[in-house]
Amino acid sequence: MKKIINKTEDIVPEMISGLVKTNPDLVKEIEGTTAVVRNDEKFAEQKQVGVVSGGGSGHEPLHAGYVGDGMLSAAVAGEVFTSPTPDQIYEAIKAVDQGQGVLLIVKNYSGDVMNFDMAKEMAEADDIEIKTIVVDDDISVENSEFTQGKRGVAGTVLVEKIVGAAARSGMNLTDLAKLGQNVIDQTKTIGIALHAATVPAVGHPGFELAKDEIEYGIGIHNERGYAVEKIKPSNQLANELIEKIMNEFTDKSGSFAVLVNGMGGTLLMEQYIFANDVLNELNDKKIDVKFSKVGNQVTSLDMQGVSLTIMKADDSWIKMLKEPVTTIGW
Amino acid sequence: MKKIINKTEDIVPEMISGLVKTNPDLVKEIEGTTAVVRNDEKFAEQKQVGVVSGGGSGHEPLHAGYVGDGMLSAAVAGEVFTSPTPDQIYEAIKAVDQGQGVLLIVKNYSGDVMNFDMAKEMAEADDIEIKTIVVDDDISVENSEFTQGKRGVAGTVLVEKIVGAAARSGMNLTDLAKLGQNVIDQTKTIGIALHAATVPAVGHPGFELAKDEIEYGIGIHNERGYAVEKIKPSNQLANELIEKIMNEFTDKSGSFAVLVNGMGGTLLMEQYIFANDVLNELNDKKIDVKFSKVGNQVTSLDMQGVSLTIMKADDSWIKMLKEPVTTIGW
Repeated sequence: MKKIINKTEDIVPEMISGLVKTNPDLVKEIEGTTAVVRNDEKFAEQKQVGVVSGGGSGHEPLHAGYVGDGMLSAAVAGEVFTSPTPDQIYEAIKAVDQGQGVLLIVKNYSGDVMNFDMAKEMAEADDIEIKTIVVDDDISVENSEFTQGKRGVAGTVLVEKIVGAAARSGMNLTDLAKLGQNVIDQTKTIGIALHAATVPAVGHPGFELAKDEIEYGIGIHNERGYAVEKIKPSNQLANELIEKIMNEFTDKSGSFAVLVNGMGGTLLMEQYIFANDVLNELNDKKIDVKFSKVGNQVTSLDMQGVSLTIMKADDSWIKMLKEPVTTIGW
Repeated sequence: MKKIINKTEDIVPEMISGLVKTNPDLVKEIEGTTAVVRNDEKFAEQKQVGVVSGGGSGHEPLHAGYVGDGMLSAAVAGEVFTSPTPDQIYEAIKAVDQGQGVLLIVKNYSGDVMNFDMAKEMAEADDIEIKTIVVDDDISVENSEFTQGKRGVAGTVLVEKIVGAAARSGMNLTDLAKLGQNVIDQTKTIGIALHAATVPAVGHPGFELAKDEIEYGIGIHNERGYAVEKIKPSNQLANELIEKIMNEFTDKSGSFAVLVNGMGGTLLMEQYIFANDVLNELNDKKIDVKFSKVGNQVTSLDMQGVSLTIMKADDSWIKMLKEPVTTIGW
């Protein structure tokens, strides 16, 4: 395993330090942590509900890349594929609370759920009002290696975008948590892998696939999915994933949003080809896609593959997805 | 080679089609080509010098990802690692000319230089005023497999950003070409590879490196560089590249801009760690870095590696680098 790093144990603090140094007008480190908080001029004056997310590292630009005006107030980075500690999350909550409470956006992984819950208790002891929403958009499997229920994956970034826009517009904590849960309920994702990710401290891929095989239904921590099959042309892959996802929506009328997400080791070129096939097929099915996005948004280290997220979206959500933000990664 | 594609020969048109479908408010295809032109509301009313770039595909988001208000007016995509044809470039020129002439930004590769030159002649026969600037920022080698003189690599995106900002502000064609040449003269890049790129139609990496080796001075089309050595920690790599690049500047006072560019197969995590080391070392050397950027800006398919670009930048250039743009990839 060749990597451009120094010591394996310094990966996360050095990454966060690099991110902050290259974006000083956007974010700053919360002292003594690997969490970052907004550092833009508007932050102090906006007086909004704080929005905090976080999780293990290795999914960049998630979450630190989504901190900024109109999206997250702060993000907490754990070690690679490892939940941040409760005290780090607690520091992030304190850094963003402006007296109107704080919403926590948590991906459904057992470690994250537990540690964000402990941080919530610590903050509540300080009389900071906290609500939590748990993203579980991955429809490929029920329960998983590190999860009770469905996993939280790429749909998280759409939840962060909509909730962040609503928080900026002045929505209160209770309504914000309700909105977030509604968005989660309408957000469905499946991912495929051509090659598993290599965790730097481990040094080899999490699982092996033959030269012509892909895995359907992977998670973002090398969790295996529901089937291994021969690779197919992009348009067939698109049609299969769309079929599975659209089955989750009983009402196929109204507006939809689409995210084609690269897992880290798959080129933008392939992501656009896949997106072209996805949008052609949805168009054939008369699905009204009003927002779409393509890119490495929620990665899994160097995993090769893509995920497809489809959201049945209220028109007000489409508007919020399109609003400009000042972040590194959106 | 597993890839999310359909037919190899359809890669570029399908990629461009996906990019346009997912960003209809920003760009549209120029009919009968794989070139894209601005489609935002401001385009028609701005009446500025047109700025056109392009080149072989496989470097995404370059160039189509930089089309938008404040950057390129149009971008022309050739086949993978292959220059676009003169007639495609000519169509792009016609699509952006608003009577004030068109500036062509060409990366120094023999095929690109030749084809942009032919397109220039075709446009001049239509009485469209054209000027060309050729980016040759790669200081690692003189002449190369596909180039006379130095290669044009990642610094191209900084040239496009500054020239695009100046064009938006109303600068005339003659001054714009002069500005562009001044920026090129102050922009220096070296890249390293941990693993060569695989061209889809070829199916295997362009060259082989041992498990602990890296190549110094690679180009963006699998051109070999000036040395193969054992991999070193990120901070040593940063110091070596900085040493070589800063030797090119006789005057080390004033403001500088820095770009840490991922080659496609290297994680954002590693890019930020490397950027952290770069900025620490430049700070130790009392170099005044006023702008820095990190990310996959000018890639080489799935090549693993990074390039470092340093520009001695007039403060007006720093301002132009920081101005907001509406593009997919900046």
